[in-house]
Amino acid sequence: MKNFESFVNSDMVSLLEKGKRDGVETVWDRVEAMKAPCGLGSKGLCCRICAMGPCRISPVPGKGSSRGICGATADVIVSRNLARMVAAGTAAHSDHARGIIHLLHQASREGDYTIKNPDKLISLAKEWHIDTEGKDIYEIGHMVAEVALENFGKAFGEMKLPASIPEIRKELWRRENIMPRAIDREVVSIMHSTHIGCMADAEEMLRMALRTSLADGWAGSYMGTAISDILFNVPKATKTESNLAVLEENQVNIILHGHEPSLSEMILLAVSDSQLVTKAKEVGADGINLVGMCCTGNELSMRHGTKNGGNFLQQELAVITGTVEAVIVDVQCILPSLAELTKKYHTDFITTSPTARITGATHIEFNEEHAYESAKKIVLKAIENFPNRNKEDICIPDTKTEFMVGYSVEEIIKHMDKVANENEKGTLMPLVNTIAEKKIRGVAALVGCNNPRIKQDYNHIKIAEKLIENNILVVATGCSATALAKAGLVNIESAKLAGDGLRSVCEGLNIPPVLHMGSCVDISRILQLTGEVAKLLNVDISDLPVVGVAPEWMSEKAVAIGVYVVSTGIDTWLGVLPQITGSEKVVNILVNDIENIVGAKFFVETDPIKTAEQIIERIDMKRQKLGI
Amino acid sequence: MKNFESFVNSDMVSLLEKGKRDGVETVWDRVEAMKAPCGLGSKGLCCRICAMGPCRISPVPGKGSSRGICGATADVIVSRNLARMVAAGTAAHSDHARGIIHLLHQASREGDYTIKNPDKLISLAKEWHIDTEGKDIYEIGHMVAEVALENFGKAFGEMKLPASIPEIRKELWRRENIMPRAIDREVVSIMHSTHIGCMADAEEMLRMALRTSLADGWAGSYMGTAISDILFNVPKATKTESNLAVLEENQVNIILHGHEPSLSEMILLAVSDSQLVTKAKEVGADGINLVGMCCTGNELSMRHGTKNGGNFLQQELAVITGTVEAVIVDVQCILPSLAELTKKYHTDFITTSPTARITGATHIEFNEEHAYESAKKIVLKAIENFPNRNKEDICIPDTKTEFMVGYSVEEIIKHMDKVANENEKGTLMPLVNTIAEKKIRGVAALVGCNNPRIKQDYNHIKIAEKLIENNILVVATGCSATALAKAGLVNIESAKLAGDGLRSVCEGLNIPPVLHMGSCVDISRILQLTGEVAKLLNVDISDLPVVGVAPEWMSEKAVAIGVYVVSTGIDTWLGVLPQITGSEKVVNILVNDIENIVGAKFFVETDPIKTAEQIIERIDMKRQKLGI
Repeated sequence: MKNFESFVNSDMVSLLEKGKRDGVETVWDRVEAMKAPCGLGSKGLCCRICAMGPCRISPVPGKGSSRGICGATADVIVSRNLARMVAAGTAAHSDHARGIIHLLHQASREGDYTIKNPDKLISLAKEWHIDTEGKDIYEIGHMVAEVALENFGKAFGEMKLPASIPEIRKELWRRENIMPRAIDREVVSIMHSTHIGCMADAEEMLRMALRTSLADGWAGSYMGTAISDILFNVPKATKTESNLAVLEENQVNIILHGHEPSLSEMILLAVSDSQLVTKAKEVGADGINLVGMCCTGNELSMRHGTKNGGNFLQQELAVITGTVEAVIVDVQCILPSLAELTKKYHTDFITTSPTARITGATHIEFNEEHAYESAKKIVLKAIENFPNRNKEDICIPDTKTEFMVGYSVEEIIKHMDKVANENEKGTLMPLVNTIAEKKIRGVAALVGCNNPRIKQDYNHIKIAEKLIENNILVVATGCSATALAKAGLVNIESAKLAGDGLRSVCEGLNIPPVLHMGSCVDISRILQLTGEVAKLLNVDISDLPVVGVAPEWMSEKAVAIGVYVVSTGIDTWLGVLPQITGSEKVVNILVNDIENIVGAKFFVETDPIKTAEQIIERIDMKRQKLGI
Repeated sequence: MKNFESFVNSDMVSLLEKGKRDGVETVWDRVEAMKAPCGLGSKGLCCRICAMGPCRISPVPGKGSSRGICGATADVIVSRNLARMVAAGTAAHSDHARGIIHLLHQASREGDYTIKNPDKLISLAKEWHIDTEGKDIYEIGHMVAEVALENFGKAFGEMKLPASIPEIRKELWRRENIMPRAIDREVVSIMHSTHIGCMADAEEMLRMALRTSLADGWAGSYMGTAISDILFNVPKATKTESNLAVLEENQVNIILHGHEPSLSEMILLAVSDSQLVTKAKEVGADGINLVGMCCTGNELSMRHGTKNGGNFLQQELAVITGTVEAVIVDVQCILPSLAELTKKYHTDFITTSPTARITGATHIEFNEEHAYESAKKIVLKAIENFPNRNKEDICIPDTKTEFMVGYSVEEIIKHMDKVANENEKGTLMPLVNTIAEKKIRGVAALVGCNNPRIKQDYNHIKIAEKLIENNILVVATGCSATALAKAGLVNIESAKLAGDGLRSVCEGLNIPPVLHMGSCVDISRILQLTGEVAKLLNVDISDLPVVGVAPEWMSEKAVAIGVYVVSTGIDTWLGVLPQITGSEKVVNILVNDIENIVGAKFFVETDPIKTAEQIIERIDMKRQKLGI
């Protein structure tokens, strides 16, 4: 028997053991089967962008080819490959945003999608100089949507960027020629420049990647979050539970997995539909238990306190419990292995998006124009599957953890308003003060994925523990937030694990030392937070004692995120080595020279404790420079 | 001594021998150094889209991994990799078009860029329902440019596609859900769907590739050609010369290499500048000799009869002659090896585009707003380099070939007008008639690159010879057209090599049996031709006895082209195996099932004679179906 505890927490071992008994395969089996990854691919030294190749550059000087057939050096190949990852990550986040914006465009008072937060809409309309005077809120919504969509395809000038960006930062982007022009155009520019016989200069290639990533962070993701808030409301602090023990033995369990709230919000409505609840009882269940997973889990818990089944690496384990009637997915981070795996159980695997069809899944296209009907149809399928459950062979782990979620910037301000001076109400000034007073030493954004090459959640947890102990406030999103939630660090009670300063702030505001700020797209909330704090202090974002950390990243979205966070002026730690070590030059740009361009750089550190120590040191350095 | 004749024509051998003596490296040396390409990469079985991997799928069932770590099968990985190639190819062509459209937007009567063909502009404006009444031609130009730019970023509905597409074909695209929405959006959609955990269905992935490629062919490339014609004029038949012997021993030789006419048109003006000509004489040269290469060569010869130095694989050989003062490049198919190679000679290597910076080159950014000044600056640099030429060690080959160039659709119609009935003047009906009468058995579009894994030009030439001998009219673009030009097949005199029927047509119209229709972007001219012929016959394009052939392709642009040509309904032969053989399913879709979707399919055949035989058979089958 394998030592399962070396790759998952003990509470998940029973599921891996059951999986083994059931004769099914998980991501960890495939990691083992893959054996050592391709050495050249891991270093970024392989190029497949034309049919003269594929080409491989030897990492050993004087041995094998030092150039591709076209003459591309290792620097060129590595930088092109990395830029394409940024392009893909940007495309994914921003296409998600595009979908949400189209929803706003079709929202209507009588329709399935309505505007839940007119205030945020009007505030955005005003920021964009849209005349709202005497206009119906839906008319305003449609106008805002049209302007938002221009950010994808604008033919001239700069994009519409949020007011939260300090002017000094925008000037830097213009000066360094990394101010983005339009989201889609930047992605296309990278795809053009990485074509055979175009860009062959690592630094210039990376500059394009910086520019593209900024379109992702400050436009694609940012608009995705803002317009989701307009349609589905701004998250408020709420308590819920995390981990697979939220699955219910006597209920129809539906796992909602993926990213886009357009689907999940409608499914959430459908599971309360009285006819469907009755139907569930008719098939012998006590009710319908909707469980979010991955970023869909974060979106749902942020706005509704929906229970969260877990993060990226738990999608297969959920099925192995034998209690899941349906896994309903939209886009991104869906393991295609679910098609095979669900066949070994009674679970229905239902794809809903034309962006992510999966061979072997049941495809029920989610039609936004008849969203509620589509959602009910999908939920009904899950209910009808309940009698097929093999009740003799189920395994739901014991452990689940309460956690607090819903810390939008608006919600953080509301919490602070309770203790703020009159003139600081409605602002982030109280946060600035606690940082100036050194109660909070700095802020670390813990973000990103799970990666099966690292014990699940381990790095996220170790880093967060060490940071809060050292009075560094952790703000978290995505699979990182879920990892920390499961570990019990996202509780009001976990303030006791924090250093004295941070603990006093948490107790004063009644908040956890780790603030769950949402899905991966919601890293835009962290950007907003840092931008507004910098503006209050009249400094650049790069001056702040703030860092980013992606301890277990794996996706191209994470690459785009890392690059836009650094381009924003925030130092970023990576716990997984990117596929760039084949080029000393690219490595050197990213961990050194880039600081001269954007005032921040990457740190690559696989050891979580060393990571935390480096962060503390860097934060103290920033404090010193600020003179606080 | 290597057998150089196994990879280049005998007239190039002296240059390879000189290169060897000079101790420099060429693309063929790098092919040899690379040894066998990676077997898995060649089959498309390698995946580097996330940091769980890289993953490798074993092509041998039961041995090694059959799935990636995420669970992606060989079908998924191969189809994703192919789709990304289409995305990159589309991005490259279309970004080129975007640049040209921006030029039209800034064109002014007094500016460096003017509108040379108002008729084509007004015709396009009318097609797009733009009100031209009483408007200045430049005002119309700016309006047309703005509408054209919408095709990149349109947020709603379908794109503006050319009137030359038969309605029946557009209906098919709608029915099959492959009607493109906006160029940039389609590229981004592929980048999103190929992200980890999205599309995992080979057929659906390929459908997205079809849709994206159509945005390339019928919009990106098509607008690129049309608006280049508006700015720089519609090509007319003219005679010029090809091959490296067009370099002049006593002149300042400037090689213009790349793709975008924005640069080349201005450099062309600059070399006639009297001050610069005087300057050239001052440094001891008889004059300035501008030589086009690759697609820039085609653009220049199409519109101005500028001499053409050769195609893709001759860019290094040109430098080795020792007679080139400057290689001036913009984007695409520029071997980065030129940076190293030019250092061994006196040649200046000058990059001009922010899309394609090359380490080691001199970068003089071509500023469209001061285009003529930029061009003069660049040409001056070349002139000043003339005295540095080592006159003792030069080698210009003997062979150059006269050829005819400039066969835009408009020019073909003009030729036919001379012999047409009154009621058929101004149309392609005479061509239709010669096909119906079987004087012309069919039409083959020979397109695409050189690939150093094939003897340069060999396949292009062998296929064309066999086709014209069998009365199949060849229309050619890109490196293929240059290959055939060098081989002497693009002459009026070469009609004697054609079969009786084709020869009689060529003699009657005074045209070659191989019509040079321009650069790779100008494949849009071939699309226009086929679309208009189909409309005249009231059939779909897929009914026509027309084929596409890319005998020596290598670039991602070529992949996008192949896919849009097939999606247009034209069977396409590939002479180089794409990196897809790791998936039987993907191969089967492309060479079989796709015919059920778009009415055409791919043929992969590396033997040129067999290729020609298959084409003849297929053309006869199409004729039989048409009943002609």
